[in-house]
Amino acid sequence: MFDTILNHRSIRKYTGEPVPNAVLDYILEAGTRASTTGNMQVYSVIVSTDDSIKEELSPCHFNQPMVKEAPLVLTFCADFNRFNKWCSLRKAEPGYDNFLSFMTAAIDALLVAQNVSIAAEDAGLGICYLGTTIYTAEKIIEVLDLPKGVVPITTLTLGYPDEKPELTDRLPLEAVIHREKYNDYSDSDIENLYHEKELIKSYQEFVKENNKETLAQVFTDIRYKKSDNILFSNNLLDILQKQGFMNNQ
Amino acid sequence: MFDTILNHRSIRKYTGEPVPNAVLDYILEAGTRASTTGNMQVYSVIVSTDDSIKEELSPCHFNQPMVKEAPLVLTFCADFNRFNKWCSLRKAEPGYDNFLSFMTAAIDALLVAQNVSIAAEDAGLGICYLGTTIYTAEKIIEVLDLPKGVVPITTLTLGYPDEKPELTDRLPLEAVIHREKYNDYSDSDIENLYHEKELIKSYQEFVKENNKETLAQVFTDIRYKKSDNILFSNNLLDILQKQGFMNNQ
Repeated sequence: MFDTILNHRSIRKYTGEPVPNAVLDYILEAGTRASTTGNMQVYSVIVSTDDSIKEELSPCHFNQPMVKEAPLVLTFCADFNRFNKWCSLRKAEPGYDNFLSFMTAAIDALLVAQNVSIAAEDAGLGICYLGTTIYTAEKIIEVLDLPKGVVPITTLTLGYPDEKPELTDRLPLEAVIHREKYNDYSDSDIENLYHEKELIKSYQEFVKENNKETLAQVFTDIRYKKSDNILFSNNLLDILQKQGFMNNQ
Repeated sequence: MFDTILNHRSIRKYTGEPVPNAVLDYILEAGTRASTTGNMQVYSVIVSTDDSIKEELSPCHFNQPMVKEAPLVLTFCADFNRFNKWCSLRKAEPGYDNFLSFMTAAIDALLVAQNVSIAAEDAGLGICYLGTTIYTAEKIIEVLDLPKGVVPITTLTLGYPDEKPELTDRLPLEAVIHREKYNDYSDSDIENLYHEKELIKSYQEFVKENNKETLAQVFTDIRYKKSDNILFSNNLLDILQKQGFMNNQ
C-alpha cells in the first residue's frame, strides 16, 4: 500500500479494456470513507462514461486526449445543494451560501478524489488529475447540468494503463517540510533545493526548445502565465457568485 | 490497502507512544508522491511536535484536546512563496498572486494531506482532520510564522490510537454519485437518501439533548451556523488578500 502511493505516476494512455462495475463501485466506496467536515458529505462525484459527454467535456480540459480516450471521467464537485435541500425539508435554515462553505465543500471533494485515486491505483488502474477543472468551471457546469450550490473542483481520468512513465522528480523532502514553524528560504536554500531539478536533462531540453533562459521562465511565460491566471481567477470568482457561494453578509 | 481506506475512522485519543522519525519521514515521503499541478509542488507541511507550539495552536482549533495530546500536529499549507522565490532568482516574473493560484496550491496541499493520512493509517497511526484551520487562518499564520504566499488549509493530528470508535455512517453511495450528468434531487430522493441517517439512535438523542426538532437543525442552528460561516468567510477572504492571493487584475 505504501508501494501504491510511492509508485504513483500520472497515466495518460489507457488500453481499451473497460473498468468492471464492481471495480468502479469499490473505488467509489473507498472515496466515501474519506474524512468529511461534520460528516456532512458536501460533495458529489459525476461518473461520465458516455462518448458524447466526454466529447463535450474535452474542450473544458483543453482537448487533452485522455478525456475522450479514458473509459472513465470523474468530476469531483463541492456540493451543498443536497445538504441545503435536506435542511429545507427539515425546517432548518441553511446558511451555506458563503465562501467558507465553498472551501469546506472543496476540501471534502478533494479528500474523496485522492481516496478514489489511491484505491484505483491499488486496483491496477491508472489515473490522471485534470487541473483545468477550475479554469473552465462555467463550461463544465453547463455540460454536467450542475445546479446552484455545486462547483466542479477537480477531474480524474481513469483506465487500465497503456504506458509506464518514469516516476516524476520531486524536490528533496526538506524543501516542503518545516519543523515546528515555517523556516523561510534564503537565496542559497532555493539554489540548493532546486539544483537537482534544474540538472534534469529533459527539463534542460524543454528550456531550449522553448527558447527560454531558465526553467522557471517556462512556467511563468508559457505554462502558467499571469494573464491566464488572472482571467481564470475572475471567471472562478464569478462562478462562485453565480453558484451561490459569495453571500458573505 | 483497501482495508486501510475502508477502515478509516477519526482518532482523537492517542497513547503516549512517540512516532519514530523513520515512520514520520516515510509518511511525509508518501505525501510528496501525490499529484501536483505542473509538478510545481506549491504546498508546505509544518510538522509541530513541541509542546509550546501545540499550546499556541490549541485555541486556533477551538481547544480540541487532541491538538495538545497528539504527538504530531501537521499543518498543510498552500504555498507559492518558495516557487515565487525560485522564479525571482531565475529571471522569471511570477504571476501567482491571484485567486486561481491560491486554489491550485490549496488543491496540492489537500492531495498531500490525504496521502499522508492513508500512509499514516497504514503504518498503524490514527489521524484526525481539523476543519477549524480555515476558520482561524490568521492566528495560525502568526503562530507558525507563515510568510506572504502561504495560507494554512487543513491540519492533521497524528499518533498511535488509544480508542477504536465505530465506523462513521455514510449516506448510501447513490446519494453522492451521479451517472453521466448531475441528477438533481426530488424531495422524495432526499427523504430516501437521509432516511437511514435520521434513524440512527445517537443522532436522535443528539437532537433531543439540543432541544431541536430535527437533525438538520442541529447543523444549521448549532454546529455550522450562518453567523459563524459569514464571519469566517470574511476573515478568510481578508487573509487571502493579506497573503497576496487576490490581485486578480
